[in-house]
Amino acid sequence: MGGGGEVIDNKQVILKELVKGAPKESDMAVKTSSISLKVEEGSKGLVVKNLYLSVEPYVKLRMKKFEHPDFSSFTPGSAMDGFGVGKVVDSGHPEFQKGDLIWGIVGWEEYSVIKNPGSFFKIHHADVPLSYYRGILGMPGMTAWVGLHKVAAPKEGEYVYISGASGAVGQLTKLGFDDAFNYKEEKDLDAALKRCFPEGIDIYFENVGGKMLDAVLLNMRLNGRIAACGMSAEHNLEEPEGVQNLRIIIHKRIRMQGFVVFDYFPQYSEFLDDVLPKIREGKIVYLEHITEGLENAPAALAGSENVWKQVVSVSRE
Amino acid sequence: MGGGGEVIDNKQVILKELVKGAPKESDMAVKTSSISLKVEEGSKGLVVKNLYLSVEPYVKLRMKKFEHPDFSSFTPGSAMDGFGVGKVVDSGHPEFQKGDLIWGIVGWEEYSVIKNPGSFFKIHHADVPLSYYRGILGMPGMTAWVGLHKVAAPKEGEYVYISGASGAVGQLTKLGFDDAFNYKEEKDLDAALKRCFPEGIDIYFENVGGKMLDAVLLNMRLNGRIAACGMSAEHNLEEPEGVQNLRIIIHKRIRMQGFVVFDYFPQYSEFLDDVLPKIREGKIVYLEHITEGLENAPAALAGSENVWKQVVSVSRE
Repeated sequence: MGGGGEVIDNKQVILKELVKGAPKESDMAVKTSSISLKVEEGSKGLVVKNLYLSVEPYVKLRMKKFEHPDFSSFTPGSAMDGFGVGKVVDSGHPEFQKGDLIWGIVGWEEYSVIKNPGSFFKIHHADVPLSYYRGILGMPGMTAWVGLHKVAAPKEGEYVYISGASGAVGQLTKLGFDDAFNYKEEKDLDAALKRCFPEGIDIYFENVGGKMLDAVLLNMRLNGRIAACGMSAEHNLEEPEGVQNLRIIIHKRIRMQGFVVFDYFPQYSEFLDDVLPKIREGKIVYLEHITEGLENAPAALAGSENVWKQVVSVSRE
Repeated sequence: MGGGGEVIDNKQVILKELVKGAPKESDMAVKTSSISLKVEEGSKGLVVKNLYLSVEPYVKLRMKKFEHPDFSSFTPGSAMDGFGVGKVVDSGHPEFQKGDLIWGIVGWEEYSVIKNPGSFFKIHHADVPLSYYRGILGMPGMTAWVGLHKVAAPKEGEYVYISGASGAVGQLTKLGFDDAFNYKEEKDLDAALKRCFPEGIDIYFENVGGKMLDAVLLNMRLNGRIAACGMSAEHNLEEPEGVQNLRIIIHKRIRMQGFVVFDYFPQYSEFLDDVLPKIREGKIVYLEHITEGLENAPAALAGSENVWKQVVSVSRE
């Protein structure tokens, strides 16, 4: 391990082999390795004690073999990783101190060594639940905010439709929902949309694609905007659903914009300034389901829907 | 007829019946009716002598039964219509005088009654061929200009790909072509694009859709823009080709914008200020194929490719 200092047990969730289809609990194993709680001499990294891990669609995606310019599959035999919240145990980096709370991509393990903390955010507001920083105040919440405020730019009175609303975006827009439906239970998506949006849709936050997008296109209004974000399990790369109605974007003058939330991370403090007060005032109600203990993470992941509501609490310290 | 004044023969191209598939010469008939050369008493309309008619994809499209919010099928038994250039013979409208040259949608006939001239443009620059006003200086040229300059907004050094370049847009961008291919002769569109754009594509002017769009998406660069314009025969509404690769717009952060040139008509003079000097200086070379005589219009249309290069000269006066 190097670095000297205390070496302790480190429980980890390991991917056994790359999976096909929906991941099962038995595709993962909880093993114990050891870790030094001191960063290596000369390193600018961190040692972090993990507090919360996100049970999220893209962890499931990375358990499969896939190709993507921004992400890679997990390495079988190694600890899985994903967005999480942690506390700095030791730091070789000038911007982080022991005791700092942070969020970013950490291992599915009790302690993680972070070699390059440059992509981590420090948590300055701990008066809200820390678990929020892997959800509504983390990447998924930021995605929702960016898609709506920076990409789609809604105007007063416009109609907004969010597919996959039980996930990231739905969390941020819970308040103000006028109607909702479960698209898996609707035989006719077009009819469901016409029922919920008799006047049509101005803004579509695209999380699903395929047939859903086709149905939405039929119901978009003139000058509509479609914000399309990534990193979700709906990108079933093996069998992409075709889109038939794309020509509609022409006569309806629709703008469709793909975006990746990472590009907007420099605006994270603007996001917090907007959302934190709404959480404190109860204007945004955020629900999470917290599973206690890293050893229960495989079951939580295998049993999860493709939503961002679930958290594993690794340590309550 | 009413209106008094001289009543003369008026040759017209009539659609016999709505067609399926590619229009044939025999789907049209040239008939002679009569017309008064004076506008009706109290009318704010025009009587126009037609000079040039555009042999264009959307005339073919309107010979079929189809539904579109902006256009309708032709009425069988009546004269067809399309973009054309004419000269005002009589005017009840305060903004148009006898002798004015105009362009807009006119009948496929020697003389047309224009009930509402509000959507017509007066031609102020007759030092270039008048036929240009139904092509490069008319709707298709304006479409190309809007798509590139207002929608896609190219920056110095960016790579631009135009599908259907033999049509409207290609005309405006002939100068500066680095490479081209005939997509009907390419078995592998992706390979053809990689050959022509080894560095990838920043801007795609979408005129084709379907498999072409899929191949282009594979070759787009980060932050690419796709300008999608309408009114072309490639919108085969009976069997739209699906698009499989749309998810690529997310990680490549692509903006796809549908537009309709009519929305930009208020900027027509800005367009002329940009393009007219380039035509006069020979920086834009515009090629047309002119068929003489309205009676030859059905053959010209039936034999035309889906491009905007062809013109019927109705009168050379």
